Amino acid sequence: MTTVKINEVGTRDGLQSISAFVPTEIKKQWISDEYAAGVREMEVCSFVPVKLLPQFADAAEVVAHALTLPGLTVAVLVPNIKGAERALELGVHKINYVISVSESHNRANVRRSTDESAADFERLIDLVRNHPGRKPIVVGGLSTALGCTIEGPVSQDAVRKLATRLARAGAQEIILADTVGYADPASVKRLFTAVKQDLGDMPLTAHFHDTRGLGLANVAAAYDAGARSFDASLGGLGGCPYAPGASGNIATEDAVFMLEAMGIDTGVNMQRLLEVRAGVCAALNTLGDQPFHGSIAKAGLPKGFASASSAA
Amino acid sequence: MTTVKINEVGTRDGLQSISAFVPTEIKKQWISDEYAAGVREMEVCSFVPVKLLPQFADAAEVVAHALTLPGLTVAVLVPNIKGAERALELGVHKINYVISVSESHNRANVRRSTDESAADFERLIDLVRNHPGRKPIVVGGLSTALGCTIEGPVSQDAVRKLATRLARAGAQEIILADTVGYADPASVKRLFTAVKQDLGDMPLTAHFHDTRGLGLANVAAAYDAGARSFDASLGGLGGCPYAPGASGNIATEDAVFMLEAMGIDTGVNMQRLLEVRAGVCAALNTLGDQPFHGSIAKAGLPKGFASASSAA
Repeated sequence: MTTVKINEVGTRDGLQSISAFVPTEIKKQWISDEYAAGVREMEVCSFVPVKLLPQFADAAEVVAHALTLPGLTVAVLVPNIKGAERALELGVHKINYVISVSESHNRANVRRSTDESAADFERLIDLVRNHPGRKPIVVGGLSTALGCTIEGPVSQDAVRKLATRLARAGAQEIILADTVGYADPASVKRLFTAVKQDLGDMPLTAHFHDTRGLGLANVAAAYDAGARSFDASLGGLGGCPYAPGASGNIATEDAVFMLEAMGIDTGVNMQRLLEVRAGVCAALNTLGDQPFHGSIAKAGLPKGFASASSAA
Repeated sequence: MTTVKINEVGTRDGLQSISAFVPTEIKKQWISDEYAAGVREMEVCSFVPVKLLPQFADAAEVVAHALTLPGLTVAVLVPNIKGAERALELGVHKINYVISVSESHNRANVRRSTDESAADFERLIDLVRNHPGRKPIVVGGLSTALGCTIEGPVSQDAVRKLATRLARAGAQEIILADTVGYADPASVKRLFTAVKQDLGDMPLTAHFHDTRGLGLANVAAAYDAGARSFDASLGGLGGCPYAPGASGNIATEDAVFMLEAMGIDTGVNMQRLLEVRAGVCAALNTLGDQPFHGSIAKAGLPKGFASASSAA
């Protein structure tokens, strides 16, 4: 049976879309509960300046908590060298360094060119190599790899060049992210196949948004093209500020449901995951209505549903 | 460029889920407008007894109107011989005769065994062959072909046997329907590949519901397995009484968006289709809030979206 890895990113991509500060206890409970349901990698916070994203002011405490869970890969998002230094200090397992393939999106996000961000990535690799303690895995995350709300279509060549540059610099994993929900199954298959051809055995993670309803179709397409690691956000939490009312990331529970139904082992217990979703949804709703999405939580599992998962 | 056919079934599957009688003028306008957007096949009504479904009391007038649109294939759903006789009288182009593969679902639906319904299909073929006027295309529609809310999983063998029986009896097209939203991309690929192998060049239509969020992923999977004809319902109208709050059929505009984004020609003008959706939604909402679904209408088309369609 094929196995895939599900990476919860709601604790980062989802929480950063909530304006109210989410109490640290809720964050820690979410991480513990989803870990108990079988999820073994989580992006638990973002190391952007606290002034810009006060939601992650408690990052150190959240990371410390996540690090107590045996076998959980604790990842953090890092947009620059400063963030990487904090990540190294805290002893995370994985640093997801993000660069937008499209120039305008990268400038809007981190006020520098894609080339400057790539050069910073090379410095980050040196920093990690010279770090005396345990060295985290460094991941090259390519945002807007399948389209950009500012520039429109993004060329496959640009994605391949950047992915290859980061891999040569020392990235141990590449994330191809459809940050704004522009991808379709055909463009996903083309891109993942091409990048896989360029990078050989390098692990490729797919990060999809469901903004235009194609998130799960894109997961199936990326799987067909050989991707075995998928970012997802519980309840589809996480948004795109340019599409009010539209959903954000693909919902973890829907992605797990689809993959398990297809006979693919995610290691996640579906029933427990739905309970975690209900708990997180209730906890976050105490802070105001949250835009939870997802189909399987509404419709329920099919009669006679047989999970493929070892965790079932 | 590959072309596919989009069949609007909201005028049947969607309208039958609305309890208020929808005025005939709204139905006719919907058909005309969607025809103008490029849709060339519509299931315009159901010939079940008017006592059971008063929504289609005006079926004769709606069919007569649809028949005035040049090049439109006018299909109707028929559950029994009586319905077929009415369809023949009115001169429709296509008769979609539905049988549930799962025994319990067929009994719940039409109070007879699957075998009895299949025998009726053979009588229907005779009826059409002996009909003096223009002979409509007769379609064998297999409901619950990918799962049943009463029986759970449905065996592929049962689907293949029934499809082969209907094809031998004289069906000119087969619909494989995931009536209750139980399918996943893997089960879809397996079933469509197997039935295609059994039936050779016989046209296969895919009919998916989005109840569990996998509708579009299933369209992509069926396309990969060779299906070139897809049922869909504008705004995802049409429901499953067993899953309150869950969406119904896949939304026509989302299916067209995905296929066009993949470079597949649907013949439908995306922008006009979104305008038709807005118009139908507004007209139906005058009768009470309607459960319109769909992502692309909410999020809008991607910047620089290039339609593949000849109708663009």
